[in-house]
Formats: sequence, structure tokens, C-alpha cells
Amino acid sequence: MSPDILTVAPPPQQEYVRIVPLGGCGEIGRNMTALETNDDLVVIDCGLMFPDDEMYGVDIVINDFTYVRERAAKLRALLVTHGHEDHIGGIPYFAKEFSGVPIVATPLTVALIKAKSREQFLGEAQFKEVRPGDRVRYGAIEAEFIHVNHSVAGACALALRTAVGTVFHTGDFKFDQTPIDGKPADFARIARLGDEGVLCMLSDSTNAERPGHTLSERIVGEAFTQIFSHAKGRIVVASFASNVPRIQQTIDHAVRFNRKIAFLGRSMRNVVHFASTLGHLRIPAETLVKVEEIEGYPPERVVVMTTGSQGEPMSGLARMSVRDHKHFSIVPGDTVVISATPIPGNEKSVHKTINNLCKLGANVIHGTDGRSHVSGHASQEELLLMLNLVRPEFFVPIHGEYRMLAAHAKLAVETGVEPGNAFLLENGDVLEFTHEYADKVGKTYGGHVFVDGSGIGDVGDAVLRDRKALSNDGIMMVVVAIDSEEARVIAGPDLISKGVFYIPEADGVLDQLREELRAALANISVDAMRDVNSVKEHIRSALAGAVHSRTKRRPVVIPVVMEV
Amino acid sequence: MSPDILTVAPPPQQEYVRIVPLGGCGEIGRNMTALETNDDLVVIDCGLMFPDDEMYGVDIVINDFTYVRERAAKLRALLVTHGHEDHIGGIPYFAKEFSGVPIVATPLTVALIKAKSREQFLGEAQFKEVRPGDRVRYGAIEAEFIHVNHSVAGACALALRTAVGTVFHTGDFKFDQTPIDGKPADFARIARLGDEGVLCMLSDSTNAERPGHTLSERIVGEAFTQIFSHAKGRIVVASFASNVPRIQQTIDHAVRFNRKIAFLGRSMRNVVHFASTLGHLRIPAETLVKVEEIEGYPPERVVVMTTGSQGEPMSGLARMSVRDHKHFSIVPGDTVVISATPIPGNEKSVHKTINNLCKLGANVIHGTDGRSHVSGHASQEELLLMLNLVRPEFFVPIHGEYRMLAAHAKLAVETGVEPGNAFLLENGDVLEFTHEYADKVGKTYGGHVFVDGSGIGDVGDAVLRDRKALSNDGIMMVVVAIDSEEARVIAGPDLISKGVFYIPEADGVLDQLREELRAALANISVDAMRDVNSVKEHIRSALAGAVHSRTKRRPVVIPVVMEV
Repeated sequence: MSPDILTVAPPPQQEYVRIVPLGGCGEIGRNMTALETNDDLVVIDCGLMFPDDEMYGVDIVINDFTYVRERAAKLRALLVTHGHEDHIGGIPYFAKEFSGVPIVATPLTVALIKAKSREQFLGEAQFKEVRPGDRVRYGAIEAEFIHVNHSVAGACALALRTAVGTVFHTGDFKFDQTPIDGKPADFARIARLGDEGVLCMLSDSTNAERPGHTLSERIVGEAFTQIFSHAKGRIVVASFASNVPRIQQTIDHAVRFNRKIAFLGRSMRNVVHFASTLGHLRIPAETLVKVEEIEGYPPERVVVMTTGSQGEPMSGLARMSVRDHKHFSIVPGDTVVISATPIPGNEKSVHKTINNLCKLGANVIHGTDGRSHVSGHASQEELLLMLNLVRPEFFVPIHGEYRMLAAHAKLAVETGVEPGNAFLLENGDVLEFTHEYADKVGKTYGGHVFVDGSGIGDVGDAVLRDRKALSNDGIMMVVVAIDSEEARVIAGPDLISKGVFYIPEADGVLDQLREELRAALANISVDAMRDVNSVKEHIRSALAGAVHSRTKRRPVVIPVVMEV
Repeated sequence: MSPDILTVAPPPQQEYVRIVPLGGCGEIGRNMTALETNDDLVVIDCGLMFPDDEMYGVDIVINDFTYVRERAAKLRALLVTHGHEDHIGGIPYFAKEFSGVPIVATPLTVALIKAKSREQFLGEAQFKEVRPGDRVRYGAIEAEFIHVNHSVAGACALALRTAVGTVFHTGDFKFDQTPIDGKPADFARIARLGDEGVLCMLSDSTNAERPGHTLSERIVGEAFTQIFSHAKGRIVVASFASNVPRIQQTIDHAVRFNRKIAFLGRSMRNVVHFASTLGHLRIPAETLVKVEEIEGYPPERVVVMTTGSQGEPMSGLARMSVRDHKHFSIVPGDTVVISATPIPGNEKSVHKTINNLCKLGANVIHGTDGRSHVSGHASQEELLLMLNLVRPEFFVPIHGEYRMLAAHAKLAVETGVEPGNAFLLENGDVLEFTHEYADKVGKTYGGHVFVDGSGIGDVGDAVLRDRKALSNDGIMMVVVAIDSEEARVIAGPDLISKGVFYIPEADGVLDQLREELRAALANISVDAMRDVNSVKEHIRSALAGAVHSRTKRRPVVIPVVMEV
């Protein structure tokens, strides 16, 4: 998007509230929303996104903070709904720039932010811990944290009261009637909010295309009971590190089936430590063993829990599958339960891991068929229930690809939201509410910021295009030294190729190409020879033509002409 | 795999048959199996595989023909089960090398081979058309083609009679009791084969992890009836080009709901042409219109069928979704039915297409929830039925990743195959049967052959490693000219970078790096300066260090030292 079409109308003369999604609308990941009133601004969540295949060599993708930066004087707080990477992963970059701004979240979320940022600078970040039910005021904005169910403990929705009305942000949620911690989402509070009147609701759209009701975490418990009753050897459960309810289920089954449990990997051990300290996990001391100790127990008395269910290449499970784990090797008879669904785009890595585990003789249970995993996001029936409880005047679907947002907007209209009041926003759209109207009033920067190595935002499209070309057909360099006075080649041409030819054949081909180039250079006129750019162009076209006619490949060709 | 461990035992002194999977075992795609007796050899299928993300710049992957090449004098025929790319895509390369060898298949399969190979050399390929029920003899091997159901018409299983016994190869199949062409798989013939006795069965494992029975094509008809009854505007159905039953269903619904049908794209029009000429498709002449003519009909009287359901970037549907199609633009009110599942790894492209279609205002129906697609491969209940009909003494699961082959082998054992008689083969394994034993007797080349540009097999792992490094962090070149007698730099260092830095910043950084390099070169001793390799190493380490400390990136560094 070209910056010159990005304009935001000046603030109106009356009381207003603006909602600006800066990430997560039209994509999965890097969720972030700004909420701004006349004198105050709060940010909700600050996530990251993992790069897709086209983002060659990019490590992570974060959000463009321009809108917040331009209004830094009004910035009062970063409110965080829960501790998943797509909601907290950008915080180190945010905290570095906006140091001193309070980061407000439940204790487990704060612990997860600190753990994830361990190796990164968190600046002067001031954390403020809140509990569900707490209200915090920042200028004219009051935020209330409301307990919801999700695949991590400590997840909250936010009711944000402003002079113009209440904005309700669901965070990521599901309605679980039988959650593992015994605490269903706070229906009563949400219903009362609806009675009080909600101006606008922003709601999680991840599963908006899925009919029905997301299954309860209890169903996973039933599947685990089946698996634990039948497994004769060791059991390995892989899930993502922050899935506290799943960790609790695994612990509960270890206790019930008289097995010891060991946790593998730093991130999982971190979460277990924080979550049990904060009372989200109950682990009998005698059940917990170190991974180095499990050799001392018979196979049928052991459970190991690890990460790697989503296709992360360096995770515990992936390493086990290629016998690259220091402390744990899969042996025939082991049962491996993959208790998660792969991140979209990671399906192939997950399948590779499963194939390798099968080759090692493990019995691998995966997929949602076995009910060993349930989603953490509300399906259509729950989204409809949320809409009917809150009955917002305006509606903005967030957290999802466009098709999911569109499906969610349709659901809102079905519950009675006026079709013109359901806004399908893109990242950077500025939606303004006053006592008189609701309207899009402009567009700010909502694009991807690439983090590559230690550089933030310094990898642009041109760099990615270059890397893509390099990855397709490789690169060839031609170096010649020219005596510019005499207009003749005094050294070279030398040819260097990388990623173009298969080594055994390359020598012969390179020799032939060098001869062709030498002949082409001999035909250049004296005038052309005195112009470096002209020599380069001659080299480029001669070599590109020769390589393409031989191999049909189009490597990047770089001519280097040294004048001596 | 290093070639020196590849050895195949010499043929035994008695009658034998060898089965050698050359592709498709442990992977999806490039299916190919050699079947060899004392004096004769036939090949079954010769497919291609699409490259995965790690195969940078590779166009397609085919099979290693070494085993067949070494026995070319015995090669009698290529038998082809059906016309999908993963069974026919390697044929142009096969036909080029083994010209004159008959290619034996049903008429539609022959037409599909010719259509797919249109732009490639098919050599002196002799096609022999057979019909289900036909038997053909090649030396001591008799092959019988047996009708099965699949997502393309003209699909067959093969019964291969040899002196040692009958080998039954299922091809890709499902058991559809209510197929669109009214012809269920030839149960009677398969059952009679079982009665006669089958030595070894090779069977399709694609859905071996899926419980139950694959739904009938009839179910798609019911879903289409729903969709066609409700759609108020135009209907676009996307499927893969060779799915003749799906094309018939779409035609039938067009007729029933009084819509005209147009086919978009060369490959789909080709298939429609061949399949109707050969009697596999029934299209009333008055129903068919050209795509240029559909503007002349009201939206509710039009169906368009196109390719692109599986994430191919240049397909009809993908082009429509970005308004890049010459003859057809999506408008609000159009209904788009995606009647296929994405090829594994293509999920993201398909979702991108769906998002774009939603943005254009289309109502997009996708996923298997809506029952607008069913698989062409047998699920567990059908695989069990096939095993119980054929009751083979030995069993080899083929066509699938390892986890699928392992699941299929378990099913075979459940139906009574001796556990030791179910062979989990890898590509290149040589399985030998005589009247006395069955055993693996060696391993031949079963690896990937990369086709890149016009080169076959000349892209090796080293080339791919280079391309991967280039795609991650780009490349930097340093060029210096050295007077080797005086051991001093007389031109340069010049720096060239590609895919490393963001252009606006690059100049300043490159200047600084050049200064650092100049300083590093000044510190090299006279002796080291006279040794080109030592100068290169100094440059490489100085530059790599300087770039990494600034940016944490590790570009490929190529020092070029010219002696003048």
C-alpha cells in the first residue's frame, strides 16, 4: 500500500472513540488493536505472526506501530487478553519503543510474557497484574477483565468503557461448560454487560466457518482415558507449551493410571513452573520426575509431555522423531499422542514427524478423529451465543482471514445486528464512533514489519524478491578486469556460480560459458568497452542467454567490471 | 543414500518374480513399480511428484530409472492404471529413454497421457489401448485390466500372472456402490481372483488412516442439488481437470436446473473433449456454451466449471480471484463451489484464493463439511473389503507416506495376512518371490530425480543447499584486484549484495563494511597476500563477522580475488 493514500481525518470536535485494528484482521496472527478517545489511547494485545513461504529468510512478522507512535503522548497502557504468541510476541519490540507504558494482564499472562521475552530487551516495562473481575482506569477509558475459556489459563475478554459507550473485546475464547479448571466463562457478567448496553463488540473469528459447538476440554479427557487404558508402553503427549488445561489433563491421567510424568523442553518446564506457582496447575510432588530419571521406571509407569505438536522444527517431538534428543529416544511400543492441530502451513512438517515416529515403531495417535485435541476457539453456535448475550449495536469481527471475518459478520446479522452496522475492517482502518455516527474515517499503516536477524523493518519487498530469485535458480557472477585506457580485458572473465549447476557437470559447462563470454567481449566496440555499464549489460545478456539456452534456467546474473 | 550400499542379489536359479517400488512408497506422488520375472519386466505407472518447499526452484520430481535401465533388454511394457499426474507425469521422460516400449492403458488414460505431454517429446511411444476385462501378454507376464472406481474415469486395477503366482495391483481405487457412471468396481472379478489364489497384493494406502467408508460420488450430487436450488446468481464449480465423474455431476445439475455450462481453461476443455468423445461424458449440445457467450445469459442460467481447487497458482480459479481472468470476473452474488481438497502443502494458497473470492463478494462453499467433495481413495472399511476379497498370501502397501503404509499393514494383518508376510517397503527395495520363499534381496536407486528447467537429474543436494542459503539471508560478493608481485591491492574492495539489505539503508552500511574490509586487507602479511586462498579466507571471515555483528544475518559471502 502506498503511504500517500493513508490519511486519517482529524479528530471530531465532540466526544469520540476510535477502534483501529493494527494486525489480525484478514490474517491469522499478530493480533493488535488500538482504542483511542479524545485524550487517551490504550492498545489491546501485541502479537507476532510466523512468516509464510514467500517471506524468504524472515524470522518473524510484527505490526507497524506508526499509529501509536504518532499518538504516543496519549498512550496510557497495553492491555493483554492472554499469553499466546499471536497476542504477546510483539511486546518486546513494543516495550523497547514505548518504555514505561504499563503492561496490564493476569498473572499467568505476565509470566508468559516475561518467559517468552527472556532473551530480549523488555525495557522499563512496568507490569500490572489484574484478576478477572478487576477494573483499571486509564484516563477516560475504564477496562474490565472478564474470565473466558481458551486453550491457555488466565484468558480474559475486555469491557472498555468510554464516554461514547462500551466497547467489548472478546479476546480469544470458547464457551466450555465443563472446563478442566471448573470455571466456565463468566456468562453472568457478559449478560449483564449486554443489559447495560454495548456500543460495539470485537469478536474472535478463528472458527467462524465451523458449524456447531467446539467440544469441551472434557472430551480430550475421555480420549486420554481410552489411550491410557490401552497403552502398554510409555506415553508421550505433545501439545503446545502454554496449553495449561491440556497439561493438567495429562497430569490427572498420569496420577489416575499410576504413571510418573516428566516435562521435556525449556518452554514447557517454564509454563509448568509458572502455572503451578500461580495455582493454575495441580501436580502431586510424587508424580513429577526429571526426564533423566525416567529410565529408572518401567515403560508402563511413565508419561512424558513435550512440545512440537505444531510442526516447529526444533521442538522436542521433532527431535525425538529423528533420534536427536539428548535425554529421550522413542522405542517400539511407545504411544505418542499429538494433542494439537498443526499451524496452517506446517502440516507437512507435522506429517514428516509422524512418519518418522512410525518408523521408530511408535503408535502415533493424531488428528481430531481420535478426539485427542479440541480447539480453543468458539464455533458458530458459541459465536451466536456471545452475540445474543452482548447484543452490540455495532460489530467488528477480528482475528481471522477474510473468509472467517465475512462468515462472522453474517452470523452477527442473523442475530439482529443491522447489516450496515457490521464492519469488515482491514488492518489500519480507523473506525470512529461519536454520539451521532459510526464511520470509517481513514486508514493508517497496518502492514507487515519483518524482523530478520536483529533488524526490525529493514527487509523490504525488494530484498524478498531478490531472495526468491536466488532461491529459484541461483546466482552467477562474472568478473573481468579492464584496462580502461586501452579498452581491453586484462583479466577474466571469471565465472562463479552458486545454486545453478550440479558440481560434477559444472566445470565443463563453466568452461564453455567462459569461452562464449570471451568471444562476446571480443566483439564489443572500443567505445562500448570504455563504458562500464555497457560492458556489464553485454556480459549480462550474453551469459543469461547462454545459460538459458543450455538449461532453461534464469539465474540472477551479476557482472563485475573492475577498471584497473 | 550412498550408492555403495545399493546391491541387488543376482537372480536365483529357479523361477522368480521381483517387485520393486521405484516411487510412491513413503511419499505421496511419483508412483511407479517394476515387476520382473526371469526373462521379462513390466513397469506399472510412471508418475511425477510436485516439489516441496525445501526443493528450491525445482520444477518437478520424477523417478530414478536405473533399475529399469540396467534391465532394458527385458523391458516389455509400461502398464498404466489411470490418468492422474502422480501416475503418468513421468511418462515423457520414460518414453524418451525407452522409446518403442508399448504404453498400455484404457483409451481415456491414453488420451490424458497425450494431452499432458503435448509440449514434451513422447518419442516413438507406441500406445496400446485396452478395455477393462482385457488381458495382454508380455513374455511370461500376463496382465489383466480390472475396472475400479476412482476420481477419474478409466481407472483399473491389474492382475499380473507369472509362473510363480498372481500379483494383484489395486491402482488407486475406492468402492463406490452408486457411482455416477453406474459401474461399481468389478467385485465379481476381484472375488474370483481371490478364489484362484493371489500370491501378493499391492494396495493404495492414501486413506489407510481414515476409519469408515469413503462417501459415494452420489453424496456430492446431493450437495450440488442443495447448492443449485439455493443459488440466485451464477455458479462456479472448481475441481481438478481430470475428475470426469465430478464434471458429469456438474453437467447433470446444469441440465436439471436449466443452466448453460461453460468450461474454462485448456486442461479442462481437453478432458471434456476426450471424455465425451470416448463416451465417458454425456453433454446435451444445447447445454454447452463458450465462456465468451455467458454474458448473454442471465446469472441464474449459468454454470462455469474451472480448475484451481488445489492451489495451483496459475489456475482458472486463482486468476478469477485476483481479477486476472480474460473472460470471466467474479461479481457479488456468484456462488463458488470448491469441489476438491487441496494438495498437502497447498492449503495456504487455496485459503488465499478463498479469501480473495470472498472479498469480491462471492459466496464460497468449500471444505468437506458441505459434502461438495468426496475422496477418490478407499478408506479403512473398503481396504478391509479388498483384503477380504483378494485374500493375498503376501501384502505390500503402496501409495502413501510411511504412517499410511504402516496403518494399512495393520489392516492386512487384521484380515489374516501373516505379520511376517506384510512387507513395509521403501522405494528401491527389491522383494523377491520364488516357489519357496519371499524375501527382500537388495536395494536399488529409489531416490528423487529433480527436473529443473530442461535439466533432468542435474540438480543435486549441494545445489539445493546453496539455494536455501541464498534464500535465507542473500549473498554478498567482494571483489579485489591484487598485484601479486607487489602484494598489494590495486583495485577494490568492491562490495555487491543481493537479498541482504534494504536499499535505502544499504549504501551507508556498504560504505562502512568496505572501510572495515580495507582495514582488514591492510593488515594481511605480505606472504599471505601472495596466496589467493589466504586472501579469500581473510575477506570471508572479516566480512561475515562485520555483517553478522551489525545485522545477525549470515549471507553467503563470495570473495573474488583477481591477480593482475
